[in-house]
Amino acid sequence: MTRPLSVAIAGLGTVGGGVLMMLRDNADIIAARAGRPIAVTAVSARDRNKDRGVPTAGLRWYDDPVALAADPAVDVVVELIGGSEGVALALAEATFAAGKALVTANKALLAVHGAALAASAEERGVALAFEAAVAGGIPVIKALREGLAGNHVSAVAGILNGTCNYILTQMRERGREFAEVLADAQKLGYAEADPSFDIDGIDAAHKLAILAALAFGRPVAFDQVHVEGIRRISAVDIAFANELGYRIKLLGIARQTEAGIEARVHPCMVPQTVPIARVDGVFNAVVAEGDFVGRVMLQGRGAGAGPTASAIVADLIDIARNRFTPVWGASASELSTAPSVPMSSHVGPYYMRLMVVDRPGVIADVTAVLRDLGISLESMLQRGRSPGEAVPVVLVTHETKESAMREAVERIGRLPTVMEEPTLIRIETE
Amino acid sequence: MTRPLSVAIAGLGTVGGGVLMMLRDNADIIAARAGRPIAVTAVSARDRNKDRGVPTAGLRWYDDPVALAADPAVDVVVELIGGSEGVALALAEATFAAGKALVTANKALLAVHGAALAASAEERGVALAFEAAVAGGIPVIKALREGLAGNHVSAVAGILNGTCNYILTQMRERGREFAEVLADAQKLGYAEADPSFDIDGIDAAHKLAILAALAFGRPVAFDQVHVEGIRRISAVDIAFANELGYRIKLLGIARQTEAGIEARVHPCMVPQTVPIARVDGVFNAVVAEGDFVGRVMLQGRGAGAGPTASAIVADLIDIARNRFTPVWGASASELSTAPSVPMSSHVGPYYMRLMVVDRPGVIADVTAVLRDLGISLESMLQRGRSPGEAVPVVLVTHETKESAMREAVERIGRLPTVMEEPTLIRIETE
Repeated sequence: MTRPLSVAIAGLGTVGGGVLMMLRDNADIIAARAGRPIAVTAVSARDRNKDRGVPTAGLRWYDDPVALAADPAVDVVVELIGGSEGVALALAEATFAAGKALVTANKALLAVHGAALAASAEERGVALAFEAAVAGGIPVIKALREGLAGNHVSAVAGILNGTCNYILTQMRERGREFAEVLADAQKLGYAEADPSFDIDGIDAAHKLAILAALAFGRPVAFDQVHVEGIRRISAVDIAFANELGYRIKLLGIARQTEAGIEARVHPCMVPQTVPIARVDGVFNAVVAEGDFVGRVMLQGRGAGAGPTASAIVADLIDIARNRFTPVWGASASELSTAPSVPMSSHVGPYYMRLMVVDRPGVIADVTAVLRDLGISLESMLQRGRSPGEAVPVVLVTHETKESAMREAVERIGRLPTVMEEPTLIRIETE
Repeated sequence: MTRPLSVAIAGLGTVGGGVLMMLRDNADIIAARAGRPIAVTAVSARDRNKDRGVPTAGLRWYDDPVALAADPAVDVVVELIGGSEGVALALAEATFAAGKALVTANKALLAVHGAALAASAEERGVALAFEAAVAGGIPVIKALREGLAGNHVSAVAGILNGTCNYILTQMRERGREFAEVLADAQKLGYAEADPSFDIDGIDAAHKLAILAALAFGRPVAFDQVHVEGIRRISAVDIAFANELGYRIKLLGIARQTEAGIEARVHPCMVPQTVPIARVDGVFNAVVAEGDFVGRVMLQGRGAGAGPTASAIVADLIDIARNRFTPVWGASASELSTAPSVPMSSHVGPYYMRLMVVDRPGVIADVTAVLRDLGISLESMLQRGRSPGEAVPVVLVTHETKESAMREAVERIGRLPTVMEEPTLIRIETE
């Protein structure tokens, strides 16, 4: 057997502890599958004395995570610090400069600096592995980058944020409002004290940028992703969705269109009958559509110490076996230059929910705006009656261009009988 | 760029034609992802003049497929002949003897001779790749062998035969009997003229043997798989399943139990709420449960030229990139020697459907047998009444040992008021 693969871990929080535990508990099969033992030899974390449930004695301890890269006895650095800038970025650069492989769970780093980091890794011929950055332990990176590698992928979509999916599921199952469910999720540890990163869609957008780069073989382009979160979804929208045969999910969707690649994260109405509509709670799922393979879906736990450790250890086994794949599936010079298309060009059916004063003539005003913009309606629903007060009205459109819908939202929002800014949810039927 | 990977294809049926087409149509991205072009240079097939939708001019043509292995300009042989013996086996052995890699879609070959072939491949240090052998284009082999490689897998299960899943789905959706749906499926090309291989569970058992070997890191053991098909499932069972909150699926299940590894293919009742219950029609799905990753499910098209070609091309790209994985995940000397347990030791709840003469005392006789064998009932259902004629009666048991259930089936089948052999369907609640 070859000598052990020597691993340094930067960041010993929940995930770092999980990696230590998995490498210890499953050392036998990991060594068999890696062709050699995988041993953590150096670590960096703020608190040396915290109980992590795994012994850390005998490890070389660094106060400065960036110093791990220079440790001559380290072969691979596992970066679990997080954040797209600062220490995480410095450590990644130092690791490549030292000619070593990097394994990371850091989606922000990859989404923002993925192209430059890939160039650095490629220049040194070292691996940059990030299975843990998207959908936890579900091997979606491997599936897209290797398993479907012979396909032209036309679309990739997924439930990429477990916190949002948990909140939307709870809202539906218990008929409760967003703010209440969020507060509960924070108590249960399913949502952060500052939940913005999750519920405003940023985390999902980082992951989608990574999936889109892999699916379409082009450099990662986070700044081209349209992002909306779930704050404006109300219990009344969930009830209407149910009535219309849909479920509301926060999806990340990247699709090859005739004009270029469209990449967007926002709440969607999806038919109750499609498999992704059934993925509930903290679970994640990714669907990819290839020209030869057709539609493939993967689902499982998208977060947590165990699933994330599983992905990181899989990357370490690949590195131990010298199984090498270019960061974005092909070398930088071979990547596609397909353009991105702006969200304003998106075309699809829309759900628009208004709160209007319940009195004659209101619907006529609203539908006149739609007529003027050439937007055609598939259906209209109104719930309850309370003359002179606010009632919800739902309009479902046929295929419409996003720019026209935005204009409609603005004009309708200005009508004196419309009480608040209309809520717009895109309908995804494919 | 390195020189092209030179590929020989043995067997140019639907799948072989699909591989030629994919390598031609997607040559650009395949070369980028493989790091070099992948070129078919030699083929063997019965009919040189058949129109395959792709040009075959310029290829070296062999009448004897085994001769492909000896072609000095060939790097990899793709075996698409099928069958566990004869030409396919001879070609595999000749390929390894020539020090070349083999890619195959042949589950029978791997299930029956997988251990010996892995030893041959390992001795020469060449790849034996078989992503296409299980679940078509869904990258389940890669997911289990690499993506979840750090996990102790406790169970793997799947819908592994699209023909059976199609038949069971049609029976449920249309309320029709097995024989009628099978006849239609044959007309539509979803079932073979001789359907036994599919509907008697043999094809699924080959695939399960492969999955179990990967999941538990042990040599493939097809002869240890318990196999039952779907011939005895009747429309009345489907209706009862629905009433009880279940769907009937032909599943392959391999599970680590305290006594050893249990591997079985048979019709199952699964709760309507679990994801695999929703996988309908010709689709396949595989669920794996790992100690760190939790439960992961993959689903997609399990057969057809496109999906199968996708899997074969992914294997070719791995070989072109020199990404090497031992056949069963670890080298032969590192595989587990966990014993198999016989089906008679299986424990679980059971559904038993009887056709009995509708007259007093019948149920008392049946339940006396169960009492004598220590089998406890969870529920009993009876449909319709027609005094003096046959009516169905369904018994659902609590956890029971298979050996006791078999004895019960035999004794109950001998009762004069029971009109035909009872139908037994195992209930899977996990």
